[in-house]
Amino acid sequence: MRNLKLTLAYDGTRFVGWQRQAEGDSVQGLLEDALARFEGAPVTVNGAGRTDAGVHALGQVANAQVTCAHDITTLIRALNAQLPDDVRVRSIEEMPPDFHARFNARSKTYRYRIWNGSVMSPFERAYVWHVPPPSLDTDAMGNAARLVEGRHDFAAFQATGTDPHSTERTIFSSRVVVEPDCRASRQARLITYEISGDGFLRHMVRTIAGTLVEVGRGRYASAWIAEVLASRSRARAGRTAPAEGLFLVKVDY
Amino acid sequence: MRNLKLTLAYDGTRFVGWQRQAEGDSVQGLLEDALARFEGAPVTVNGAGRTDAGVHALGQVANAQVTCAHDITTLIRALNAQLPDDVRVRSIEEMPPDFHARFNARSKTYRYRIWNGSVMSPFERAYVWHVPPPSLDTDAMGNAARLVEGRHDFAAFQATGTDPHSTERTIFSSRVVVEPDCRASRQARLITYEISGDGFLRHMVRTIAGTLVEVGRGRYASAWIAEVLASRSRARAGRTAPAEGLFLVKVDY
Repeated sequence: MRNLKLTLAYDGTRFVGWQRQAEGDSVQGLLEDALARFEGAPVTVNGAGRTDAGVHALGQVANAQVTCAHDITTLIRALNAQLPDDVRVRSIEEMPPDFHARFNARSKTYRYRIWNGSVMSPFERAYVWHVPPPSLDTDAMGNAARLVEGRHDFAAFQATGTDPHSTERTIFSSRVVVEPDCRASRQARLITYEISGDGFLRHMVRTIAGTLVEVGRGRYASAWIAEVLASRSRARAGRTAPAEGLFLVKVDY
Repeated sequence: MRNLKLTLAYDGTRFVGWQRQAEGDSVQGLLEDALARFEGAPVTVNGAGRTDAGVHALGQVANAQVTCAHDITTLIRALNAQLPDDVRVRSIEEMPPDFHARFNARSKTYRYRIWNGSVMSPFERAYVWHVPPPSLDTDAMGNAARLVEGRHDFAAFQATGTDPHSTERTIFSSRVVVEPDCRASRQARLITYEISGDGFLRHMVRTIAGTLVEVGRGRYASAWIAEVLASRSRARAGRTAPAEGLFLVKVDY
């Protein structure tokens, strides 16, 4: 058996999410089906993280055990030929048999993109959260962002109704950047929030992003996010920011 | 009568082009229909340039004579509320009665985007021409690009079957840039070609782009583009690069 590590990019717009489901197209389902065609047998693909419906990926990682003898370049080309063009296999690496994309992940990095302008760019509409003027206070957002760095109980920032074993996670980096955008109009700003950590609860990045926007709007001071964190109460945090602004950027091992 | 100058952005993917046609959605048609609803009468919208089917715009300019008394901010908001989200009115300015978006344009700037990598980004697939490896020689392309600057007869670079009054145009600037892309993978390069001039023949930018790629592939030296230009023969130039890589960036008056 070969154990392949696949690095993937996908436009999440039309998917039910990473995970295979009874109805609708999932990224995992499309990959498993494409690999099964080479194997002539079912293949299981383990993703590093389960992105929700509408969430995008620049560098999702997955692993799969296969027996087929194709070289890596041929495999990449053949898989991409089978997959629809909103999912791409960027690279494949040969790994030891015990490598597991989820269990061995040491750090994941997500990016949340906010379009702060009155008129939305037609080229960004599927890849940002549109927050109309007034201008968000990005310094205040940046200060608030830093306050979630370190080891914390993130119960206040998880989707209601989920109940994981532990809600503690370590955040290595949490930063706000104002970017000049490739195809942006000058009248709008693209605000990017980037967070790396050893793991994330369901909706955690989107809830932090929603909370940062509350700070950016001046409704709360930066320090408020520390109170929300300490409260461990989802009701205290901001809204869950929409899925289309979120990108899984990379997974480190 | 008020004479309004509208600056527009659109994702050209699903349009038959700028110009209203019997069948299919055009940007001009959507704008004229939206404005006619405020006026309660037909409105004609004059575009600075007719972008073809699939061509995008960051800063197309158009003018329209209207009688409605709404202030500019209200007009922008109301038009954008009527238009589908792949067309946006970015700004509106009040102009003297004799302003005409096409006749008064002094310079137009187009950008042509080339994705030079084996694996296409799912986020760029509708906005670039995918040119797989080997790597294009961007220095050679840049040198060739410079050779079309100045006043020339561009008959070699126009769509076959078109027959304008004159095929002479003045190119103010013609440059190749290799950009780090916002959402690009590291394994690919985004090559941008930008050209400004006093006017463009049909398919002119796309044919120059196709010719530059021939140079980038090493099939011809940079100086070949000057020979093609001098030949005035469409058969000598490269292929017409696909519409989806082309953006009308701005129009200057």
